[in-house]
Amino acid sequence: MLILGIDPGIAIVGYGFVEYINNKFKVIHYGAIYTTPKNTMPERLEIIFNKLDDLIKTFKPDAVAFEELFFNMNAKTAITVGQARGVAILCAQRNKLNIFEYTPLQVKQAVVGYGRADKKQIQQMVKILLNLSEIPKPDDVADALAIAICHAHSSQFKDMFRIK
Amino acid sequence: MLILGIDPGIAIVGYGFVEYINNKFKVIHYGAIYTTPKNTMPERLEIIFNKLDDLIKTFKPDAVAFEELFFNMNAKTAITVGQARGVAILCAQRNKLNIFEYTPLQVKQAVVGYGRADKKQIQQMVKILLNLSEIPKPDDVADALAIAICHAHSSQFKDMFRIK
Repeated sequence: MLILGIDPGIAIVGYGFVEYINNKFKVIHYGAIYTTPKNTMPERLEIIFNKLDDLIKTFKPDAVAFEELFFNMNAKTAITVGQARGVAILCAQRNKLNIFEYTPLQVKQAVVGYGRADKKQIQQMVKILLNLSEIPKPDDVADALAIAICHAHSSQFKDMFRIK
Repeated sequence: MLILGIDPGIAIVGYGFVEYINNKFKVIHYGAIYTTPKNTMPERLEIIFNKLDDLIKTFKPDAVAFEELFFNMNAKTAITVGQARGVAILCAQRNKLNIFEYTPLQVKQAVVGYGRADKKQIQQMVKILLNLSEIPKPDDVADALAIAICHAHSSQFKDMFRIK
């Protein structure tokens, strides 16, 4: 099973393609889509959609996983991140992929086995589980890979986590 | 000039096509796109994108106008509305339309001439300015028409209001 984890934002969209076969992980590809304020907001959303669409069509994942957004962010940030997230979800949907989402708690528990794990611990476990030589940068990429790992660990119960 | 005003939400997307020629308004078409919780969030976003895309391709507006979102909504609502808004903006952008946004204050001033106008006053002015027999329902449709009127009144200064 090839899983695409996505951590969407307007300036950086982290993504990671992780293969999970016989309880073993293999990283296929990871990175980030960057947009700059030199482009208008509509242009930035289009860049995100187009690049993500290219990636999905190239790597053909079986499932896409997102993290549920924190509800303690301010409304301005929430709208901006929401716009980027909506475009990323639309892209997955138009490619007829199965789409899932997990809470930050679920991601921490799946990756570190401990719901109060901090960012450093998650990144360290991502590096170890995926057998990487170093922690992927920026943080959004490590987060996207963590979300993909979480889906792999949860996928036997996957219908529980389908986005409603 | 044919203007499309959009008031996006996940359950209801109000829209209105308003023609503005020689300082006169003519309503071409208006209505709402509805989605229900019976569909998943990704399906609802796709429904919004597809229906809006059909409308844009049918009526071929010259410009699209959105209202800036209130920043005093709670984060959960902001994310949900942001996702729908992102998809609507993407749709306009992929159709290579000029996209604008206005604050609620600008909409009120443009439609009623008074920044503290209430919802009822705006709806009444929409009805009068567009020569409608009654106030369009639901509120999202009247809001979308108000945004289109606002853009018509502001369009001589339009580069000021292009989404950055």
